[in-house]
Amino acid sequence: MPKKKYNAFYAQSGGVTAVINATACGVIETARKSMNINKVYAGRNGIIGALREELIDTSKESKKDIAALKYTPSGAFGSCRYKLKSLEENKAEYERLIEVFKAHDIRYFFYNGGGDSQDTANKVSQLGEKMGYPITCIGIPKTVDNDLPITDNSPGFGSVAKYVAVSIREAAFDVRSMAESSTKVFVMEVMGRHAGWIAAAGGLACEKEGDAPHIILFPEIAFNKEKFLKKVQSTVKKHGYCAIVVSEGAAYKDGTFLADAGTVDAFGHKQLGGVAPVVANMIKEELGYKYHWAVCDYLQRAARHIASETDVEQAYAVGQAAVEFADAGKNAVMPTIVRKNTKKYSWTIGEAKLEDVANVEKKMPRKYITRNGFGITEECREYLQPLIVGESYPSYKNGLPQYVELKNELIKKKVKTNFEI
Amino acid sequence: MPKKKYNAFYAQSGGVTAVINATACGVIETARKSMNINKVYAGRNGIIGALREELIDTSKESKKDIAALKYTPSGAFGSCRYKLKSLEENKAEYERLIEVFKAHDIRYFFYNGGGDSQDTANKVSQLGEKMGYPITCIGIPKTVDNDLPITDNSPGFGSVAKYVAVSIREAAFDVRSMAESSTKVFVMEVMGRHAGWIAAAGGLACEKEGDAPHIILFPEIAFNKEKFLKKVQSTVKKHGYCAIVVSEGAAYKDGTFLADAGTVDAFGHKQLGGVAPVVANMIKEELGYKYHWAVCDYLQRAARHIASETDVEQAYAVGQAAVEFADAGKNAVMPTIVRKNTKKYSWTIGEAKLEDVANVEKKMPRKYITRNGFGITEECREYLQPLIVGESYPSYKNGLPQYVELKNELIKKKVKTNFEI
Repeated sequence: MPKKKYNAFYAQSGGVTAVINATACGVIETARKSMNINKVYAGRNGIIGALREELIDTSKESKKDIAALKYTPSGAFGSCRYKLKSLEENKAEYERLIEVFKAHDIRYFFYNGGGDSQDTANKVSQLGEKMGYPITCIGIPKTVDNDLPITDNSPGFGSVAKYVAVSIREAAFDVRSMAESSTKVFVMEVMGRHAGWIAAAGGLACEKEGDAPHIILFPEIAFNKEKFLKKVQSTVKKHGYCAIVVSEGAAYKDGTFLADAGTVDAFGHKQLGGVAPVVANMIKEELGYKYHWAVCDYLQRAARHIASETDVEQAYAVGQAAVEFADAGKNAVMPTIVRKNTKKYSWTIGEAKLEDVANVEKKMPRKYITRNGFGITEECREYLQPLIVGESYPSYKNGLPQYVELKNELIKKKVKTNFEI
Repeated sequence: MPKKKYNAFYAQSGGVTAVINATACGVIETARKSMNINKVYAGRNGIIGALREELIDTSKESKKDIAALKYTPSGAFGSCRYKLKSLEENKAEYERLIEVFKAHDIRYFFYNGGGDSQDTANKVSQLGEKMGYPITCIGIPKTVDNDLPITDNSPGFGSVAKYVAVSIREAAFDVRSMAESSTKVFVMEVMGRHAGWIAAAGGLACEKEGDAPHIILFPEIAFNKEKFLKKVQSTVKKHGYCAIVVSEGAAYKDGTFLADAGTVDAFGHKQLGGVAPVVANMIKEELGYKYHWAVCDYLQRAARHIASETDVEQAYAVGQAAVEFADAGKNAVMPTIVRKNTKKYSWTIGEAKLEDVANVEKKMPRKYITRNGFGITEECREYLQPLIVGESYPSYKNGLPQYVELKNELIKKKVKTNFEI
């Protein structure tokens, strides 16, 4: 008699990326071939979907549509910012999860997210031991911030990195053309409130002396206005223009974000603007240069049209590996990207315990930032470069990328009670 | 005895685009085959290069590098914002031009720019008649603003349009994924201080009911705060989120730009911020929705990585046609894009007199904007759609687009005097 198959729950968690759907594709395509997994139910809006018993039946989606996820940015099933408390603090949430999982024959839990999410996954993995419900729990890495530990890098980051490097190169070409009689300084704001990985990626565009970006402002380096303005001035004098990448997390020595430093609106309310206009105005006031600035915001993490092929492949691979881990009977682990010790970049899939991943932030090492604090070192470049390699273009129709929208049919609820989030 | 060949002067003028170098490629490649033109000298930083006698000898550039211009954004020879006064107002400038042209055997003048530049080209075309210097003068259209008259569209616009439509689609997918528990409103600011063509292009991303963008704020439609907020609210209620494209030129009824409406910095100075944060803050204060905003700025007009193939082809074609016009003995004209009356979009090159083009702004017709003022009509879509069709990817190395940097060797000066700009 063949072994009984159980259903799996898959959820996307936290900020979405250009390639998290490629991971979903890896999970679903692999699960469809699994000897142990029956159907994959996706949480509508992440873990909230499990708590509310809003489960999307992915078996209703065509093979073609699931394959198209590989080329579609964002979270196809919806994501959420919701962190489970500990078992001791909020047992009701866990009881609810068990109730829903039991009702729908779910014994596999795949949780696709960053550090917080791996913490949630780790807590769920303990349901078996602590509450007597047999569940196999696999975390799957994802974060544009690249701050997950153990894994060499996080799926989602490579594509943001590519977007940022391409964008600053293009905009700098533009500014350089105009600098003689117009804009001399360009400031581009990128994500990364706590770590400078994304800002550092801008540095990849600088391949030879004089290339942009000329200055990168990292969250890791306390902002020194005088030193910064001096650097801007000397760059404009030397190259005729200056292109700057600034992390949203750039801050003064006392920890105050530059973005929060003093701007008020007409009513005296503190304004939550970006850091780019703050830096640009500073330059205008002190040096008098004409400036332009851009804030990439969601565009950078949604830019599937310029995704890194390496990133897409890794995103798919961690999804696939997660199901293979579950099939192999593993629990409370997360697939990782392991950089192989080869001359030409190559990688393979490794494995980390969720308890080692949860709530640990991988900071950018100081040795990745140049001594003056405004650029990246060769060692940093060697680390980052392979992650943006390769293009993986979506298909286009009428000049626009064709991103799939799934049917996202909810299965019938079976649990009698509702659960308030 | 073969006819004597003369040199040509080519200059890029005003804000650069993702495809103005494709036009330069068209000019130079065609001129290299011309029976009348000897060398093409490019102005270093546009017309300023002619006044300063800073002429780049394009014959020193390899065939391969000139071909690579087709894939390189920005102005390869430098551009400028500099408008010649009329002959009556500043005769000295024109005398200087003749002095430089004469010294370098230049009898062809190709000027690549927008409305102001076509005005300059028109003035230069009169040098023959008014000052006895034989010159053939051809204007070449370029502007991301799409506001040149007579031509069906302007090279440079199609690529910005594609960038904007792709970006709002991608960011909206992202916001929709997160809206249940996080960001509900996304605001993306685009260029176009006087006309809403670029903002309108965002509307192409909306292909069916409910698609983003849900609201476009045009410079042509006076901003009505109450009506706008109501629309935001009803959109969030209906679709769960709201994606907005706002033109930098969006303004109140009295003409005040939204971007200028009252923000001051900590020192009480009026702050030249973007319009996106102003709109986003308005929504936060009145409706309480969590928001994100992006300002595309130069990224949109430099984004060669996602240029429209149609745009690239047209940009090349107007460069080629300009030289062919000169070869045919024409003067004081500009090649135009003519939309053919075919079911499937097709186009050909036409011809306009510079005097008809100079200083005329093509506004967006009211019939291109929906009655409620927040979207584009079918007629507008039919006009815009073909302009973004096709992808024309640059080549990549190490994950980055390979944009050419020319040698830009200046020829030896011959004129004894300097000219102060």
